[in-house]
Amino acid sequence: MFGVILAGGSGSRLWPLSRELYPKQLINFNTEKSLIQSTFERLNKFIPSENIISVTNTKHHANVKMQLGQAGENSIILSEPVSKNTAPAIALSVKYIIETTEDDETVLVVPSDLLIENDEKFIQSIHDAQKYVEDGYIVTFGIKPNYPETGFGYIRCIDGKVQGFTEKPDNQTAEKYLQEKDYYWNSGIFMFKVSTLIEELEHYCPEISSLIRNIKCSESIPFNEFDKMPNISIDYAVMEKSQKIAMVELQSDWKDLGSWQSIYEVSPKDENGNVFVGHVLDKSSKNSFVYSSSKLVATIGLEDTVIVETEDAILACKKDKTQEVKQIYETLKEQQDGTQMVHKTVYRPWGFYTVIAEGKGFQTKLIHVNVGQKLSVQSHNHRSEHWVVLSGMAKVVLEGKDHILSPGHSIDIGVKAIHSLQNPYEQDLEIIEIQKGDILSEDDIVRYEDIYGRV
Amino acid sequence: MFGVILAGGSGSRLWPLSRELYPKQLINFNTEKSLIQSTFERLNKFIPSENIISVTNTKHHANVKMQLGQAGENSIILSEPVSKNTAPAIALSVKYIIETTEDDETVLVVPSDLLIENDEKFIQSIHDAQKYVEDGYIVTFGIKPNYPETGFGYIRCIDGKVQGFTEKPDNQTAEKYLQEKDYYWNSGIFMFKVSTLIEELEHYCPEISSLIRNIKCSESIPFNEFDKMPNISIDYAVMEKSQKIAMVELQSDWKDLGSWQSIYEVSPKDENGNVFVGHVLDKSSKNSFVYSSSKLVATIGLEDTVIVETEDAILACKKDKTQEVKQIYETLKEQQDGTQMVHKTVYRPWGFYTVIAEGKGFQTKLIHVNVGQKLSVQSHNHRSEHWVVLSGMAKVVLEGKDHILSPGHSIDIGVKAIHSLQNPYEQDLEIIEIQKGDILSEDDIVRYEDIYGRV
Repeated sequence: MFGVILAGGSGSRLWPLSRELYPKQLINFNTEKSLIQSTFERLNKFIPSENIISVTNTKHHANVKMQLGQAGENSIILSEPVSKNTAPAIALSVKYIIETTEDDETVLVVPSDLLIENDEKFIQSIHDAQKYVEDGYIVTFGIKPNYPETGFGYIRCIDGKVQGFTEKPDNQTAEKYLQEKDYYWNSGIFMFKVSTLIEELEHYCPEISSLIRNIKCSESIPFNEFDKMPNISIDYAVMEKSQKIAMVELQSDWKDLGSWQSIYEVSPKDENGNVFVGHVLDKSSKNSFVYSSSKLVATIGLEDTVIVETEDAILACKKDKTQEVKQIYETLKEQQDGTQMVHKTVYRPWGFYTVIAEGKGFQTKLIHVNVGQKLSVQSHNHRSEHWVVLSGMAKVVLEGKDHILSPGHSIDIGVKAIHSLQNPYEQDLEIIEIQKGDILSEDDIVRYEDIYGRV
Repeated sequence: MFGVILAGGSGSRLWPLSRELYPKQLINFNTEKSLIQSTFERLNKFIPSENIISVTNTKHHANVKMQLGQAGENSIILSEPVSKNTAPAIALSVKYIIETTEDDETVLVVPSDLLIENDEKFIQSIHDAQKYVEDGYIVTFGIKPNYPETGFGYIRCIDGKVQGFTEKPDNQTAEKYLQEKDYYWNSGIFMFKVSTLIEELEHYCPEISSLIRNIKCSESIPFNEFDKMPNISIDYAVMEKSQKIAMVELQSDWKDLGSWQSIYEVSPKDENGNVFVGHVLDKSSKNSFVYSSSKLVATIGLEDTVIVETEDAILACKKDKTQEVKQIYETLKEQQDGTQMVHKTVYRPWGFYTVIAEGKGFQTKLIHVNVGQKLSVQSHNHRSEHWVVLSGMAKVVLEGKDHILSPGHSIDIGVKAIHSLQNPYEQDLEIIEIQKGDILSEDDIVRYEDIYGRV
């Protein structure tokens, strides 16, 4: 069996914690593990890691790799050069499996942003689906609704036979579905044989089918090939059209963490129904969600309100309007605000940096270099850099000369000076960097080969 | 005539914009001028600046002086070494007037945190009060209520004769006062002859009266003398007891900017009744006040809510609960949080600094040194400092040796190294300072005399 984790989404409705370059599947929502880490572990209980494929966007590759860590070292990460919805992502994984093995494997597709509470029941449902899969069906997993949710898709199913799919309904329709008892929430989890999906794709979506034939799967997918893919969901491309669809009821507790309201719903609450995370000081609020990532947030008398504080943006929203956060995100994108795109902390293969302050002509970062890591040999045409070591030791090569810096020591890197920062020591290295210059851009970087010829 | 501006308050109900060390009278609430600047200008229309006395706390002296600027260059600032409410502050001003002139002057006392819209009507009311003042009365100014405010004191006045004072009433009482029509809001503005106040103080508050006799007024008041003063308001010390009280109705538009709700009330609103200041992105909020001082604040569907964003703290509060901000402030004070005390920008005689980032073992400041200014010669026992010049030129004296730094250049100041920072040039100097050390405290400073013997 193969597992496919769909991890390409942007999670715009969970802005400002979720960003275009750091989406919700990578975030810890007051939990020990991120959503993608939990999803990987759940699959890894019954699928070996080398059979687990995470499909994500090139932009998130480094972050996904870092988060899967040692447990996922042998797992596969397929990076789409451009996001094209679920049908191309699933087709890509299936192509990878075909290239890898000659068996007609069973494939379980799981979104990376679901919270599933009971792993045993989950595995039981997978087991129940197996017989349909063997009979050549694509199995979709449905959840019995317990309230009239308007944010999900619904599946109509009578006596195990799927009658049809409906997109997010309006309030009245959702109420009707809840009454009628043969409607289920669409979990976004699917299971099928490789041969079944290939057949159904060929029949109902020949466009994807023929494109995928020409793509050679590797960890980086060529942009020119993949960009031709239609932007289409697997529901629309196959599920709503195919005659070979079965549904199995998913018994385990299941939550789509798609909005701040749903994050609120799954969080433990105090006696006034509040969820407070971080440095929050409250007087008499009720049924509210307040998340502070760094600053003090003081709240008085709020009701059914969501406040999310991050380094560079604050959201204040009525709890029943959290679906509309997506529109704020889209507006910011249109305005090229940047606040929807990056968090101030950016993860790199060698560690991470956080932009802690910006102003006219300068930028200050806290740079964290993991043990044994180093940054590329580089120079900048428009800025000077000044580094002060906070903890650990830094080896700096500046214009060919080595400098070893201990905490409290600093070094100036002039404009155009060739330099590299290394941490060959036993302890993580933290430095403060001040960039100074009229043009401060991540693009102002000239990279050089190191002595081993690597860039 | 003398004018006295009471400018010692802390404005805790306007936290987090107002801080213990940067209180509301110093703040621009989306206006060109701060409250103390507007108050000074209003008095200066009919009182020469050398007859205007600002009574403030030692902590705010530098800020008040800076804000009064050129127009207030000849005006008097009396700095209380400890805050003791309005009676000692007024007594202090009167003592200063007695020491300065032999005439029995008329004194107009005005709080620094009132918004008065119509200066002509204000001056007319002052004029109307003059006859009572001449007859030996202390005149208090009352405002006809137009709604049942519970946050103000009330004056009962029938046929120009004051019947009594009431502290902040409950809702029901405030409603009754509004109906009965002989109740007025107490504006906190007073007018009297020096001789009248001295007489009434001697009669009703001999404690202040005898203490004030021994205090020699200068710009710095001795702590030992002033600390003996009772912490008592002028209303309680004199107004509520004296038989010589008259009331004049203040005709001009008048607002006590004592809470975020009142700031909201006086601000121009959009068609949905919202007030947005700074970088705010809203969807469908109503009757709300959103103030962003730096970060993006995105709001969705809020109603009657106040959001105030500052560098280090965020307030989110139901509009009718803004009186309770004071309790948040008091809690922070008890917790020694620090967030109630300083803003991250601190003004000094030589310029200002802003704490732009703090972390374990380090602190980063942007330091702005005005043209021709310098900081004291100093050293630190527990931290090293690293300075990078952003703009202007810096003269640094480090262990007796001069260093001239232009933009982009830096210098390390070791632990215990004796150093001073100077800007003897024609342009303001901006540097980034990184402090590094296990103990980072403003108190870790040893000051030395400079070559002229000044500390």
